[in-house]
Amino acid sequence: MIKAITSKDNSRVKFALSLKENKYRKANKMFLAETFKSLEMALANHQVVEVFATEWLELPEEVQLNLVSEEILKKLSSNVNPEGVVFICKMNEYQGNYDKVLFLDHIQDPGNMGTLIRTALAFSYDAVVVSKESVSIYNEKVINSTKGAIFALPVFEEELKNFKGSHQIIVSTLSDKSIPLDEVKHDDKFVLVLGSESHGVSKETLKLSDIQVKIPIANIDSLNVAVAGGILMNKIR
Amino acid sequence: MIKAITSKDNSRVKFALSLKENKYRKANKMFLAETFKSLEMALANHQVVEVFATEWLELPEEVQLNLVSEEILKKLSSNVNPEGVVFICKMNEYQGNYDKVLFLDHIQDPGNMGTLIRTALAFSYDAVVVSKESVSIYNEKVINSTKGAIFALPVFEEELKNFKGSHQIIVSTLSDKSIPLDEVKHDDKFVLVLGSESHGVSKETLKLSDIQVKIPIANIDSLNVAVAGGILMNKIR
Repeated sequence: MIKAITSKDNSRVKFALSLKENKYRKANKMFLAETFKSLEMALANHQVVEVFATEWLELPEEVQLNLVSEEILKKLSSNVNPEGVVFICKMNEYQGNYDKVLFLDHIQDPGNMGTLIRTALAFSYDAVVVSKESVSIYNEKVINSTKGAIFALPVFEEELKNFKGSHQIIVSTLSDKSIPLDEVKHDDKFVLVLGSESHGVSKETLKLSDIQVKIPIANIDSLNVAVAGGILMNKIR
Repeated sequence: MIKAITSKDNSRVKFALSLKENKYRKANKMFLAETFKSLEMALANHQVVEVFATEWLELPEEVQLNLVSEEILKKLSSNVNPEGVVFICKMNEYQGNYDKVLFLDHIQDPGNMGTLIRTALAFSYDAVVVSKESVSIYNEKVINSTKGAIFALPVFEEELKNFKGSHQIIVSTLSDKSIPLDEVKHDDKFVLVLGSESHGVSKETLKLSDIQVKIPIANIDSLNVAVAGGILMNKIR
């Protein structure tokens, strides 16, 4: 179905704009995304609800296309130079039965979170789980930094303790108890936990750990969390 | 020596502000940096020329301290909430005789460049070299993302071909000729080359390569360049 929208007060445009706020994203279990590459990946994953574009696009029948002016598209987009498409997506929901899980504890930087989701997909992780203190998964900068990976991998909010027992919990930390990455042996079912860029992992998280792991480094206190995550996931997978 | 500066038209403030532009940085071989952590690292490396701060600081005798108002400090800083210190640094110059070198070819994103410099320091590389098409090493966002590493590691502009013969040239690329990272054997003297986030490495760079290497990934076209660099440097060092 195609509809041409010319007014900013249109109810579909207003609904889409409301999804820029986390509370409306959570209430509706939907979020906004953009770029043609992301649209392609989201369509393949059957997550697209409705599309706003400045030109006609071929879409599956069940997806509504709203043709809008460039002015309206700019309002919907979070980029200075939008590609000409913004769309509404359904959120992924917890399905259970994930063997290889990346857990992000208090990750605040949206670029780091997006990059970690992209890397988890590249190393065939089954899901990315974030703590409720982390930046919103559906923040526009997170979505952009995933480069489409958010549509190909389940990403959701859940507590770490719910994985205790069923999964080996491997926590990245620079404590005395951590063993060097090369010496880690992991189970088939595991959760790899990365902590905050500035404060590391919390005491509660450490208590849940089955192994603590570190990447041996020199000269400097720490690696960027997305880099550390990449090095860990390349080995533990 | 301590001087209290109250006017934005002061010649030292004007000089410092001019260093926000690349042409003045190059002409004076100096650049601006900030945060107390970076100042500490830059002082340890004897690179600090002059400091602007809102409060008195203990500094070596040869380093001039300019006490400035918060308003002037905000003008000098590139952060919304500056820490209260901005300083002028000397650039690192090429000294030769670096065994383990990271080469950044056409890297455009300042956050990625800064993170790569930080990672190179953590894995004890001897120097980071950037191609002239890359973002300026002394861009404020690059400096901030290095987390002080720029003061502890030589970072300079140089052509890749000047390393040919003396160093093994290892190029990260996804071509048919690339061998998986785990199979790479490297010499004592090498240059690891990373290409542009969007276009990879150039033909000229490939011609100079002695080995091409790739990180095996699935589901997605590529990793973020800072993540890929971290994984490569963790192995090739």
